[in-house]
Parts: sequence; structure tokens; C-alpha cells
Amino acid sequence: MTDKLTGERLVDDMTDAERDRAARVETVLPALRAAAARADEEARFPVEHVALLRGAGLLGLVVPERYGGLGGTLRDLAAATFAMGTACPSTALAYFFHNTSASRGLLPLEAIDAGLFTGEEVPAVRAFAEKVLTRMASGTWLANFASESVKSSNANITIATTARRTGGGWILDGEKSFGCATGVADHYLTTAKLEGHDTAEGLATFFVPREAPGVSVRAPWDGLGMRATANNGIRLDGVFVPGDEALTIPGAFTRMLRMSRGSFVGNQLAIAAVYTGCAQNVYDAVVEELTRKTFADTGRPIASGPTHQVLFGDMTVQLETAYLWLRRQLRLETSEPPLRPKPEVYRQWRMGKGAVTEACFQVALGAFKASGTSGAMMGGVVGRALRDLAMGLVMTFPAERGRLEAAQMVTEAKENELFTTADRA
Amino acid sequence: MTDKLTGERLVDDMTDAERDRAARVETVLPALRAAAARADEEARFPVEHVALLRGAGLLGLVVPERYGGLGGTLRDLAAATFAMGTACPSTALAYFFHNTSASRGLLPLEAIDAGLFTGEEVPAVRAFAEKVLTRMASGTWLANFASESVKSSNANITIATTARRTGGGWILDGEKSFGCATGVADHYLTTAKLEGHDTAEGLATFFVPREAPGVSVRAPWDGLGMRATANNGIRLDGVFVPGDEALTIPGAFTRMLRMSRGSFVGNQLAIAAVYTGCAQNVYDAVVEELTRKTFADTGRPIASGPTHQVLFGDMTVQLETAYLWLRRQLRLETSEPPLRPKPEVYRQWRMGKGAVTEACFQVALGAFKASGTSGAMMGGVVGRALRDLAMGLVMTFPAERGRLEAAQMVTEAKENELFTTADRA
Amino acid sequence: MTDKLTGERLVDDMTDAERDRAARVETVLPALRAAAARADEEARFPVEHVALLRGAGLLGLVVPERYGGLGGTLRDLAAATFAMGTACPSTALAYFFHNTSASRGLLPLEAIDAGLFTGEEVPAVRAFAEKVLTRMASGTWLANFASESVKSSNANITIATTARRTGGGWILDGEKSFGCATGVADHYLTTAKLEGHDTAEGLATFFVPREAPGVSVRAPWDGLGMRATANNGIRLDGVFVPGDEALTIPGAFTRMLRMSRGSFVGNQLAIAAVYTGCAQNVYDAVVEELTRKTFADTGRPIASGPTHQVLFGDMTVQLETAYLWLRRQLRLETSEPPLRPKPEVYRQWRMGKGAVTEACFQVALGAFKASGTSGAMMGGVVGRALRDLAMGLVMTFPAERGRLEAAQMVTEAKENELFTTADRA
Amino acid sequence: MTDKLTGERLVDDMTDAERDRAARVETVLPALRAAAARADEEARFPVEHVALLRGAGLLGLVVPERYGGLGGTLRDLAAATFAMGTACPSTALAYFFHNTSASRGLLPLEAIDAGLFTGEEVPAVRAFAEKVLTRMASGTWLANFASESVKSSNANITIATTARRTGGGWILDGEKSFGCATGVADHYLTTAKLEGHDTAEGLATFFVPREAPGVSVRAPWDGLGMRATANNGIRLDGVFVPGDEALTIPGAFTRMLRMSRGSFVGNQLAIAAVYTGCAQNVYDAVVEELTRKTFADTGRPIASGPTHQVLFGDMTVQLETAYLWLRRQLRLETSEPPLRPKPEVYRQWRMGKGAVTEACFQVALGAFKASGTSGAMMGGVVGRALRDLAMGLVMTFPAERGRLEAAQMVTEAKENELFTTADRA
Repeated sequence: MTDKLTGERLVDDMTDAERDRAARVETVLPALRAAAARADEEARFPVEHVALLRGAGLLGLVVPERYGGLGGTLRDLAAATFAMGTACPSTALAYFFHNTSASRGLLPLEAIDAGLFTGEEVPAVRAFAEKVLTRMASGTWLANFASESVKSSNANITIATTARRTGGGWILDGEKSFGCATGVADHYLTTAKLEGHDTAEGLATFFVPREAPGVSVRAPWDGLGMRATANNGIRLDGVFVPGDEALTIPGAFTRMLRMSRGSFVGNQLAIAAVYTGCAQNVYDAVVEELTRKTFADTGRPIASGPTHQVLFGDMTVQLETAYLWLRRQLRLETSEPPLRPKPEVYRQWRMGKGAVTEACFQVALGAFKASGTSGAMMGGVVGRALRDLAMGLVMTFPAERGRLEAAQMVTEAKENELFTTADRA
Repeated sequence: MTDKLTGERLVDDMTDAERDRAARVETVLPALRAAAARADEEARFPVEHVALLRGAGLLGLVVPERYGGLGGTLRDLAAATFAMGTACPSTALAYFFHNTSASRGLLPLEAIDAGLFTGEEVPAVRAFAEKVLTRMASGTWLANFASESVKSSNANITIATTARRTGGGWILDGEKSFGCATGVADHYLTTAKLEGHDTAEGLATFFVPREAPGVSVRAPWDGLGMRATANNGIRLDGVFVPGDEALTIPGAFTRMLRMSRGSFVGNQLAIAAVYTGCAQNVYDAVVEELTRKTFADTGRPIASGPTHQVLFGDMTVQLETAYLWLRRQLRLETSEPPLRPKPEVYRQWRMGKGAVTEACFQVALGAFKASGTSGAMMGGVVGRALRDLAMGLVMTFPAERGRLEAAQMVTEAKENELFTTADRA
Repeated sequence: MTDKLTGERLVDDMTDAERDRAARVETVLPALRAAAARADEEARFPVEHVALLRGAGLLGLVVPERYGGLGGTLRDLAAATFAMGTACPSTALAYFFHNTSASRGLLPLEAIDAGLFTGEEVPAVRAFAEKVLTRMASGTWLANFASESVKSSNANITIATTARRTGGGWILDGEKSFGCATGVADHYLTTAKLEGHDTAEGLATFFVPREAPGVSVRAPWDGLGMRATANNGIRLDGVFVPGDEALTIPGAFTRMLRMSRGSFVGNQLAIAAVYTGCAQNVYDAVVEELTRKTFADTGRPIASGPTHQVLFGDMTVQLETAYLWLRRQLRLETSEPPLRPKPEVYRQWRMGKGAVTEACFQVALGAFKASGTSGAMMGGVVGRALRDLAMGLVMTFPAERGRLEAAQMVTEAKENELFTTADRA
Repeated sequence: MTDKLTGERLVDDMTDAERDRAARVETVLPALRAAAARADEEARFPVEHVALLRGAGLLGLVVPERYGGLGGTLRDLAAATFAMGTACPSTALAYFFHNTSASRGLLPLEAIDAGLFTGEEVPAVRAFAEKVLTRMASGTWLANFASESVKSSNANITIATTARRTGGGWILDGEKSFGCATGVADHYLTTAKLEGHDTAEGLATFFVPREAPGVSVRAPWDGLGMRATANNGIRLDGVFVPGDEALTIPGAFTRMLRMSRGSFVGNQLAIAAVYTGCAQNVYDAVVEELTRKTFADTGRPIASGPTHQVLFGDMTVQLETAYLWLRRQLRLETSEPPLRPKPEVYRQWRMGKGAVTEACFQVALGAFKASGTSGAMMGGVVGRALRDLAMGLVMTFPAERGRLEAAQMVTEAKENELFTTADRA
């Protein structure tokens, strides 16, 4: 399988067009891999990767060809983030967030086709959507800022950043806690709440230029892992955004979300692909090292000892488990016609996110144990993987939360179902 | 999804022809379900199921149409055993073993096409193979007896039963410990070792009629679960088998195995589908019951309590895990061209068998806990599922063994690979 | 250690007096062990065990010497139920429930000493308490019926059985779902709710003779395990109980509970000792068998194979885990002065109950896997242990519930604590 | 419990003398805690802690009073390393290694009393033993270097460092991979193999002064956790050690080991106490923080949410599990007379080491998940604990290895036992 592309370990039934796009990804991997150790050590996003990825045409990977992109789908994105994850998980993660911006273009266009916008609304929606897509295709890096640090008991994300109307545009105030490429991206695609709205209907999206007056980068972020993602977050103090650099039609955000195949804006599985790539890499590294190193007395590889066999057996099952959930989710979110109804696809992801990231972390933990005290370093493939993959456990939501949500969907759907039946009687 | 066939919960991308065959399976489910509780209680294979399945044409499910069968593949078999597993796991298991006999017809024919037999050998091989297939298609129930109770440290199955040549045929002596439908099947397809051979090259296959002189059924088998499978085993004391009722060409067995897509004679995943069907059924039953039963004080469903939410969350993930391994294995063993090389397909199953059966058992255990002391009965859907699914843990090999085998394949392939590289240098 | 008493595997620092009492227990073990298989098969409480245990003086094991008992404590009870659990878990369980009746005598006496009853109440309380203890010491078997099948979201046990006053006594109506020795015990010590009360203050305790008019045994109980405990439950239809055969002072029950060292009426750990005895027995049996049986090719014990080494390693840790929780709980509930405050002892048990029973079940599951298909029987040491130990998982409450309760105690105590601090400010 | 000493959370039945010694430990905790974050960040052993601990008299904690020490036992040491582990795990670990040097004094003295040395040998053995103890008591910090990086399939530790005789002493050559306080300790107590010996009989112990010619510190050690322990390791290039600064009687090492109550030189459980202290600290920190922080919508503590309740329930059970194994091991290694035979004490530790460290790591992992992305920092209590506790997983041996060793002891003892029985027949 020497001629296989890295991404084909995940997406093992690529079309020729997909292989062509994956081949572009392949070209950037050596540079990513070479820079990974130092980027982690310095906790610095390697800005030169922006030019590298732009040069390979990869900033428009999932932008339709008619807007100048490569025309890839979620399958391409997952293969790409997986492949980059084997080389530099931080860059893969930042690249994922850039690509997720495409949903702000693609979903509104689908919502237009589905008749969710009035004739009056359509031009503004289309203009904004096309702006997102053409900018990406033309080599603009977009950070995507939604999360904030405030927590609610009943929602995954709570938005406190506000937008109030002013002459010719909007004034934004607030703070965004997480989102890669702070200080690096050309624009921050920012979600804020329109003045006078209390619900998700009031959510709107804004292009905030990196250097706009009032934008500041928060204190350096000293993460445990994924340290080279420039995840500091930003503050917005009275930042002006012109009207045509925003999508502010009330309800546009929620109507857009209705078009998503999976959870939230979709694509989330491609972030789990980052972690799976990282897990595959640490697995390969440890298998290679411990089949090469030998016992002083027997000359047999250290990997052949009974304890290592137990560890490698467990790691192999865990790694495969990550692939299984990921491939299934990819199939559920891309099959035409849809294999399963949307609530089931959504529920699957609430379970799958945790299943993939826990499995990947277990691979790293097994690699760590297999390496022993001599491998228990801050850096190195093992030390970095353990830290990078720990981040996956908390990203978005932990596995425990996803399982409870799945349980609720299973038992409440049943409750409602039963209730409806009772009503008819 | 009310119009979905049961088997489509597993194989969710059926062709029309597959749906037609699955519809036949659907017709027998009510009878299987109705008989399941008593069959378990009495530890008795419901012989009337033979006629039922024969009447539905299902004994030839995986026999090619040109031999009078329905032309199904492993996909049909898995869908069928899964569907039957939701109704009566014991019958599903016995039906699985009947179908696995087809490999004794299909694999030799493939081996002929692959040029593994000499021109001289071909007629005898073809004749035996076609006899297996046409018998199945014509409504004969075939038990499939390989396992014996002796254990070796280096093989999954050790054959001590012997066949010695006599005028016009062979004399068989030995004991078979496991294999469904003892005293029920029309023929026992029996593996024995030819006199004068010490290796797997000497393994041969014989049709032993149920009522042949010298055949006796062993003492009743009082299994923990899968009790209605007539798994007593048989003794063979000087049993005569005519020459044309056997395939005794040395090496025929091992050449046949080389054609298998997966492990052993293949098809093993369809036995795991039995367990998954059983797990889905107990899951559905418990969700239904505990969303219906309510707390005396709040009137809310018992399933909505915090402990039950934890249990249902875990069960839902476990159930999905079983599906994921099963669907992937099915894809690996049926895709054309092959998605992955055979050793990888084989390794996947060494992990997958344990992963599926452990996950299914966890579903039953969760259902058992969710039901509380009042549901901790010997019978009932929960009690039966717990016992039936416990059998899956030990069937063939436990998960722990499969993981160690996978580890060995991973680390030894790597050793060899490294060794080869060194040689070239 | 051949001269060790069975119970010393659990309580390994016995005093001489404790060893004397444990020696009595040792005398009944052979008979219990001999009867266990058939008792399970027939799902019948071996009534002859009542005479056996009475003859050994064991019905008064935990009754103080001044009431004619042996003067044992919870340490003796745990050692005894553990030892019996290695021989016949069902008898051990029924014996546990008999002994737990002693709390209805001991705790009220302690409550009197603690000044929880008024001078007016004391005589009636003392008379009832002494009646419980002297009856036990004189060889009366007492079943202890609390549980009912109705469930509330906010309590472990919900009592719906009622007692209304009548001339010279009380009339009881209701149904008890669980409690060993139905149809066997001399008296059923029964908890009911006094007419006109809505809270636990109204709970009262009654001696109901086995043959009293209006008492009937419910339909046979076909449990998965612990089948020889006569756990059918009873119905009470207008059963008359004389006034001096009851403790009906409002609040007596809750005042009594305040004296308990651990959870509920205390002693609960002795039920977990039953399961631990069972786990030790199946562990010993499987180690013995698989170190004796050998591989056909190498002659080495089957237990020495890599898979079995993994299984035995896990089983050994699990078994030890059960002992650890049990011994700690025993120490917490018997140390003088108390090592930890009562809420901590209580919380420990909410975790410990699940930890012990889950660990024991894992031992049985490991034994089951180690034994393979040939050991996957309904009966036999392994089959029985798997079923008996499954009961431990659901008895009282599952591990998942205990963990959630512990979490709540940890986080709410903290909440309250913080709240109090804020108040002062 | 505000007047409790930190160490009493582990050793909760201290004598007054033990409380006095624990009170000394209590005095150094604030300084340790204050320095912990920076020490981790800079990966620097805070040398000022040497003076701090010396000033508190703690360098002689486990040295008998007749040699000028405080007369503590393993109970004191475990309480001390636990308490320091709550404040600065790195310092606690280094302090543990200093104290383990005492075994080089105590065990030889016990071996003399047990008659394991000849009259001729006794003076040299006693002189060296007393030198170890008096040096410790007088405020000398001793590093203890045994481990090297070479691995054998059949032993935990392989010694390749050599000692060859020279005029008036010995010349040492080799490299030591792990051992705290490199460049900090006054002396390195170093194990080496005497020239001309091939077995453990040839192991000898040497005092190597930190500044001795030929001693060099290896490259800085950039560990994942326990970073402030100065664990670089040393190189010894022709280092001269005078004869009276060594114990070189062949077999002295192995005779000394025979006196150990547990595994290796004993005391190992005190290293697990370090991890348990760290786990308790991160647990307390997260409970405190998440019961204080509240949801924006409900005002309820974040800890009260369903996901957090699951996490806290699991963490509480895991933390308690660590304590249980630790307290049991402490009891087994300190009870008089011994509660269990030495092989059982040894086996218990092979399981216990892994059980404690895995449980502690799970506490940290739970804390990490509970803290979410905002807590996923490199530093902070949670980030440090996750990294420090990961080190426990690989220290000495992983849990998987300990379990396999326990299995082997269980099944091989049984094999031997059976063999002996067969011989008699």
C-alpha cells in the first residue's frame, strides 16, 4: 500500500477527483511534520503554513468550483484534516476551523434553494454567502469565532457578544474564548447577538478584519496540547463592521442550521479526524520503535513481551474504534439519499464525538505506557500526542455529556411518541 | 421507518433483490418470537422451525440460483441471522450453522476457478461441492460439526476425530462437542482427520446422516444460554460413510480455506449478527418498558431518572459499537474489489468478534441493571438476553484472545518487514 | 494457611472469640456446599438448613449474650455470610436477612440509651426490642420484609403496605416484593405505614406469623440467580397483628435509624460479603481446574496461556478490589471511636456496594470466559456464580446510582458549606 | 476535621508520635505549595527545599532515634509523601527517593540480626549501614540511583554500571537513567555490578559524592510531569570511591532484600502515596471551583449538572480506590505479626502499584474533563496534575505488567503446589 495517500487510511473508497485533491494535501505534509515539534514547544502557530496551504490551493478545498474552489466535500475535508493530523495536529485543527467557515456560505445557499428565505431576503443572503466562498477560494484565511466562556445549563454555546446598529453598519462588543488562528487569520468570522434579540433568532455573522480598530488579541494561551493553534481568543471593543460585511437578517442563522446534515453547522467529524490522524501517527511511531528496540537478554523486540502485547492489542482495537465511528458518521452525513433521518445522524454524532476522541486518547495512553519512563517526555511524538489528544476529550463536549444527550433523545422521543399516541385515544 | 425490514437495521443499503430475500425472513419472525420463551425454558430446539424455514425457501438462502438457491450473499445471511436474532437467538444460531455449510460448497468451487485443484481432482471436488449446495437448496438441514473438546496452545480448533479407509468408503470414530441441531439436522457435515495424516492437510469432510448406525447424541446439553439449539454434540463409533459422500482429497480443506475472504471459512460475522439482533431486541424492550412505567411520586417515566439516563447512554453507545464493527466487517468481506488485503480483513475480525459480542453483552447487562430486581428473572426478554449474550463472549474465542492475536499480527508483521529490509541492505 | 477458617480470608484479624464463633460457621459449610447445586436447580430454599443453622446456634450470632445470643458483631456476621457465600450463596443471603432483623432490636435499645425516646415510650420500645432479640437467640428464623415494587424518584424504598388500628391490635394490608425465606421463616418482620401518616415517621414494625390468616405466598419467583432463597414475597390481606407484637410508636423507626453506623439499618456490607464469598469460590474453582487441565500439544496448564494470564490477572485484581472495599467498610462501621463521621461512612457505602458487587461479577465473568464454551453451563460452579453474582448488581441499587449519590453528597455538601459561609458575611 | 493533619487523610489512625512527626511535615507544605507552579514551569528542582526539609528535621524521618533520626516508620513516610504530594508532587517524589536510601541502612542491620551475615562480615556491613543512617539523620540528602535504560525480558531492573577494584577502593563506570535530585543531592547512593560477577550476587552499593571527579550530569530531562525532580541522571566515568564508602560484600545486596516486607527494598507504596496526594489535591481544587462557578441561566453550580455529576461520581470512586489499595498495602507491610505471608504481600503490590496510579490518573482525567477547554492548560492545578499523574502510570512498571505478574504467581504457585502433591502420591 506504499502508493496510498495518507487520507485513504480514513476514506478508503476515494474517487479519482478525491484522490487528486488528497494528492495536494500530501504535498504539504512534510513541511507540517518538520515544523510540528518546534511549533508545539514554542506554542506558536507557524504563520508560514498559511502561505503553504494557500499555495497548494487548499484554502478553497470545500468551496464549489463555480466560486473558484476545488469542489471538495466533507469527505475531502475529513481526509485532509486526518492526513494533516498525522503530521501536525495543531495546523490540522486550525485548517479545520478555516474550512468550517464555508458552512456560512454553503448552508445559506442551500437554505435559499429550500425556500427558507423570502424573495426580498434572498439577494442579501446570497451576496454574503458568495462573499464567504469566494474569499476562501481566493486564498483568504478565515478564523471562525463562535464560542465564549460563559456557560448555560441548557445549551452548548452561549453568545454574549453584541452587535448594535450604527450608521452604515454595526458596532460589535464582546469576547471570544476559543477559535484558532488569532492574530493570523485575515478575517475573523464572528457570531454576535443583534441588539434587541434574546433568542438564537438574533444571531448574526460578521467579517471582522484582523487589524480592525478595537480588535485585540487576548493574553497568550498556554494550552496543554494543540499549542500551535493561536487559540488566544479576541476582544472586540466597539469594532465597526460595514453593513455589507455581515449577514444580519433575523433568523438567517437558524434557518441556515436547518440545512446541516449533522450537528450544529455540520463538518464536526472533520475535527475528530484530526485527532484520529494524530492517534494513527503515534501508534505507527511506537510500533516502529518497539519492534526495532530489543531486550538485552533475548534479542527479541520489546514489542513482543507479554505486557506490550496486551498494550498493543488494546491500542489496535481503540484505533480501529475511532475509524469505525468516523467512517460511519462520514457516510451518514454524505450519503445520497440520506441513509438515516437527521435526528439519528445528529444523535450518532453526540455519541461519536466522544467515542472517537476517547479512543484516540487511549491510543496515546497505550503508546505512553508502552514507551515507559524513557518516553515520558514533554515533547517527542508520544508526549505531544498525549497532550494533543487530551484536548480532544474536552473539545466541544466530553463523551459523558454526549452519552447523556443520546440517552435523553432515546427516552424522550419515546416519551413523546407515547404521549402522542395517548392524545389520539 | 415502519416499513423497514428488520434486517435493514443492520444492512441499511439493501438492493431490491436483497429486500426481497429479507422479506422472506420477515415472514418467519413472528413464529420464532412466539416460540422463543418456551424453547429456552425447555432447552429444546423447536423442530417445527425446520419446516417453517424450509417452507420459506430459506434453507438455500446463500446457495447460488443455478443450484436452486436464492442467490443471497453474506449480506443476506447477516441480515437474516440478525433479524432472527431479534426474535429467537437460538434458532438464529442454528440457522447460521446450517448456512455456514454452504462454504463447503462455495469455497471449493472458487478454489477450482482459482486453479488450486488439478484436472484429475476437479471432478470429485466439484461433485461434492455441488452436492452440498443442491442439498441445501432442496430443503435439507445441514449441521456443521468441526469443534472438539481437546485444546491446543497454538490453534483455535483441534480435530481428533479419525477417518480410516474401508471398502467403498470410510469409517469415522470420534466425538464432536459443539454444533447446533444435534438430532434435528438431516445430515451432519463432519470434519475428520484422514488416517496417516498429522497436519491440516489431512482434514476431510463427510456427510453423516442423522440416523446412520454408530451415530449417537451425547447427553443433553444444559447451556447457560442459546439453550434451544440442540447443542449436545455427537459420538461417532465406527460410522460408515460411502466414498461419494465425502471430500477426502488431501489438502482440499486447506486449499478451500485460502478462498475465504475473512477468517476460517468466512461468514463468522453472521454469528455476531445473531448476538447483535438479540441486543437490539432487549434494548428496544427495556426502552419501551421503562418509558412506559412511571415513578409513583412524579409520574415521570422511570427511564428519565439520572441513573437510568446513565445506563441508557452507555447501552446506546454499546449497541452502536456492535453495529459499527459488524457493518465494517461485512463491507470488508463483500466489497469488490477488496477494500483491504486479506490479512487485514482477517485481523479485523480477530478484534471485531470480541468487540461485537462484548458490546452486545454490555447492552444486556445495562438492560438487566435498568430493570432492577423485579426484572432479574431467569426468563423474560432481559433474563434470556443476558444468558444468550453471555454465550457470545466465549463462542469461538474471547475478546481477550482476539486482541492478543491482533497485537501479534501487528508487531510480528513489523518484525518481518524490518527483517526483510535489513536483508536487502 | 490450612488451619485458617474460611471467614478469615475476609476478616483477617479475628479475636479468639470471633474465631470461636467462626468455627461454628465452619461446621455448617459442608452441608451447605453439598446442597447448593440442587437447591439452585430446583429453585428451592433447603428448609433443612434452618434446623442446621439453629443447631449450630447461629440464629443468634449477632444477638448479645445477655439475650441468649452468641454476642457477635458485624465483623462476625460479615465473616459468616462470606463463608456461607463460598458454599451456598442463596443460604448465605437468606441468613443475612434473618440477621438483619437484629437491627430492629439493637438499634432501638441504642436509641433508648441515647435518650431518643421519652420515659413513657421506653417500656414499649424495650419490650419489642428484647422480643426480637430473644426470639432470634432462641432459634426463631425471622424474615425481614421491607421492599415493595412501587418506585419513587427520590427514595430507595417506598412503603405502601398499611396498618390500621383495630381492637387489641392492627390490621395489615399490602404486598411485599422481596425478602428471603417466604414460606420458611417462622415470622415475617414486616414494615408498614400507620394509617393517617404520610411520611417515614409513620413507619412501624410488625411480627407476622408465617401461618397467620390472610398471609399468602406470592407466585413462585423464578430468579436468574440466588434461586434458593424463597424470594417469592407475600401478600397481606387483612392480617391481624396483636398490639404487643408490633412497634408502632410514631417516629420509632426513624429514631432507630439515627443509631445506625452506616446506611439504612446498617449491616448492608454483610450482604456484599455473600457475593464476595461466591466470587472467591468461583475464582478458586477455576484456578484449580485450569492449572490441572493441560494443552494437548505442550502439556502445559491451560491457565498458563497468554489469554488466560490476562484473564487471571484481571480476575485477581477484581477479587482483591471487592475485599478492599468490604474490609474498609467493616472497619468504618465497627471502629471505636469512629474513624470517620457518619455521613462519610454512609457515602462510602453508596460507592462501596456497587464497587464490591461489580468486582465480584467481573470475577465470575472472567471465570466464565476462562472456562470457554465447555464451561458455559446453566449449572456448575461457574454458571451458578455468574447468575448469583448478577443478582448483586441490582440488589438494593446499581453501582451507577451509588456513584451519582456520592457525587451529589460531595458537591451539595460543598454548596451548602459555601452557602453557610456566605450567610455569615 | 479542620484540625486534621494532611497526612491523616491517608493514615487515619495515627499514634501521638506519628502525629508529632506529621506536624513537622505540615510546616513545610505552604512553602512547597507556593513554589510548585514555577518549579514545574521551569523544570527545576527548588534547591531551597533541601534546606527547608533539613531544617524541619525531615531528612532523618525514618532513621531510628538511636542514629539521630525521628524514628518514623513506613507509616510516617507514606503520610509525609502523601502530604507533600498535595503541595508539590515533584518535591514529594524526590523526598521519597531520599528516604528510600534508608533501606540500605535498615535492611542490612535486620539481616545481621537474622544471622544472614557471618561474624567476619558483620563489622563492615554494620559500619556501612550506620553510615547511611547517620548521614541521613545529620541532614545529608541522598539520591538513590539504581535504574538504567537497558531492558531485559525477565527482570524489572538491569544493572550495567560496573565497579572494578583499585588501590584503596573502586572505580565506577556507567550511566544511571533515573533517580531524583541529580546535581542537588549531597551523595548519590549508587548500585553497580562488581567486576567478575554476572548475577545479582555481584551488586554492590557506593556513596558517590555529587562533585566527585568523573561524575557528570546528563542532558536536561524534559519530562512530561514530575518536572521539578532533577531527574537528568548521571554519567560515571572512572569515578573513584574509597573502600569504606561502599558495601561490596558479594551477596550483601540480595541478603538485604530478603528482609524487605514487600517488593524490592520495600517502601514502594510511599511513592504511590505521592500520586494519591496529588490526586486528592486536584480533586479538591475542582470540587471547590465547580461548586463555586455557576451557570449563567440557572445560577446553580456547574458541578450540579448531569455530566458533572457523572464525572464527580466516577472521580470519587477512583480516588477512594487509590486510598484502599494504599492503606491495605501499608497495613500488610507494617502489621506485627505479619497478617499475610511475604509472597502475598509482594503479589498485592504488583497489583496495587498499578491500581493506585491508574485510579489517580483517572481522577486527574475526570478533573480535566470537568474543567473543560478553559481548564485545559499546560499549568494550573489540573494541567500539572494530569502530567504529574501520567508519570505514575509508567514509573517502575505499568498496571498491565503488574496484573500479568500476579496471574503468573497465582497460576504457577498452583502448578507447583499440584506437582508437589502428585509427588507424594
